[in-house]
Amino acid sequence: MDRRRFLKTGLAGVALSALPHNDMMAASAETAAKAPQMKPAPKQDAFNLGMAGYTFVKFDIDKTLEIMQKLDVHYLCIKNFHLPLESTEEQIQAFHAKLQSKGVTGYAVGPIYMKTKDEVDKAFEYARRVGVRLLVGVPNYELLDYTEQKVKAYDIRLAIHLHGPDMPLYPSATDIWNNVCRRDRRMGMCLDIGHDLRYNQDPLADLKKYASRVFDIHLKDVTGNTKQDHAIELGRGKIDFPRFVRLLRKVGYNGKCSLEYEKDMKDPFLGIAESVGYFRAVCDATR
Amino acid sequence: MDRRRFLKTGLAGVALSALPHNDMMAASAETAAKAPQMKPAPKQDAFNLGMAGYTFVKFDIDKTLEIMQKLDVHYLCIKNFHLPLESTEEQIQAFHAKLQSKGVTGYAVGPIYMKTKDEVDKAFEYARRVGVRLLVGVPNYELLDYTEQKVKAYDIRLAIHLHGPDMPLYPSATDIWNNVCRRDRRMGMCLDIGHDLRYNQDPLADLKKYASRVFDIHLKDVTGNTKQDHAIELGRGKIDFPRFVRLLRKVGYNGKCSLEYEKDMKDPFLGIAESVGYFRAVCDATR
Repeated sequence: MDRRRFLKTGLAGVALSALPHNDMMAASAETAAKAPQMKPAPKQDAFNLGMAGYTFVKFDIDKTLEIMQKLDVHYLCIKNFHLPLESTEEQIQAFHAKLQSKGVTGYAVGPIYMKTKDEVDKAFEYARRVGVRLLVGVPNYELLDYTEQKVKAYDIRLAIHLHGPDMPLYPSATDIWNNVCRRDRRMGMCLDIGHDLRYNQDPLADLKKYASRVFDIHLKDVTGNTKQDHAIELGRGKIDFPRFVRLLRKVGYNGKCSLEYEKDMKDPFLGIAESVGYFRAVCDATR
Repeated sequence: MDRRRFLKTGLAGVALSALPHNDMMAASAETAAKAPQMKPAPKQDAFNLGMAGYTFVKFDIDKTLEIMQKLDVHYLCIKNFHLPLESTEEQIQAFHAKLQSKGVTGYAVGPIYMKTKDEVDKAFEYARRVGVRLLVGVPNYELLDYTEQKVKAYDIRLAIHLHGPDMPLYPSATDIWNNVCRRDRRMGMCLDIGHDLRYNQDPLADLKKYASRVFDIHLKDVTGNTKQDHAIELGRGKIDFPRFVRLLRKVGYNGKCSLEYEKDMKDPFLGIAESVGYFRAVCDATR
């Protein structure tokens, strides 16, 4: 019987709980040869985890911010159901103040669909008034010339959102690239990696090919590469996130990766949290 | 203007939504050179993610299983507040049936504190009746000889749980090792990596040193290496999980890694989900 065990056995049940903490620490020092090796402070990536407002389509901004604060996520792409396009200056300021009180920055607005010139006008005016330099938007194809004029006039970047097989407008990253590559450099895409895969495209190859025009990313996992496939918690689907994160670093992506979680949208919180944890760990484990 | 853009611009707003899906797929085939590279089927590790029953101390077994099912976690260490020690055979069978209906296996019982010979008797009899071969338990030091007889008689492994600076009984992995290393090989530890670090021990070094006697693991992150530090979501604290998971593989650990989440215990679900996602991604990203 070793000395420590003898000591404890002798005292057990009588006075152990009365032992001052320092004595226990002194006893343990015999066996603790050196200070434990702890995780070094994490390196900051050039990109940040964010939230696509659409993730919270069934919830108001207070619930949205409560969840974001609990999950320690600090960037939100603002959707119009949280901040309507016709908001007054006062409403916009109050909205920003509310975000700020929860440590959240609204880094962009959208996605905003634009089917007429008037809707293009309103979208850019909204982005300007909200004070963001990035508009996630979906202008009809025939409005691209007009939209380009607005991009130049406002000096606001346009990230066109792709929607895979569900919609004929901009189904893929390649389609957006073909439509913007000869236009102003401030016209690019919000690469939705889930929808891109559901359209049988390779979202990682697309990130690499089109990096110069990828201004925003919708983080999403999906069950496969067909229209019938659907969104799922990050890590449970077919996107290879370790390879994706390594590629983000390789191409020098410095925008947001905003989780757009589209499963169980009436009760999405567990899935959102699991996905946030998953993405963080992929970042930590691939450094 | 390329052919696709001309096609779409010409049709936009009129007939695009009427285009059959197959036509869109055919159009995209021009640019999709080959099938997308998708995540390969994940390799199965020798260890599994589980849940320590204590995580759900404020919740009944139905809520526990609802959360486990949503998070796709399939192993539970059964605590007595979910299945009392005095349960009848019928109650035990009904409990197992309920777990099975949610895809969950009760792989062990405990932690169970044993302060008298009678409590040792009851703990081993309970484990036998529940039908598990692993008892996470905390026998008083002076009961270790008696407990060893029970381990041999029942052929049930005992994993002694360490509790860091909060309790004088078994504060560290080293303390358990010193108390079991010359005893029956079925006597070992449930390595609580968070409590070990809070006692200023190095849980990863301990895993390596004591691997032959590590029968269960409590997965936990903590803010630092003192008694004043506390539990936190996996990945936000000081445990280096990528290194930990690589080490699990290196030492050939084939038990469970059971999340014992001790933050916000009245409303722990977001933190549990974030932690589950984090651990999964660490496993995926370090393969």
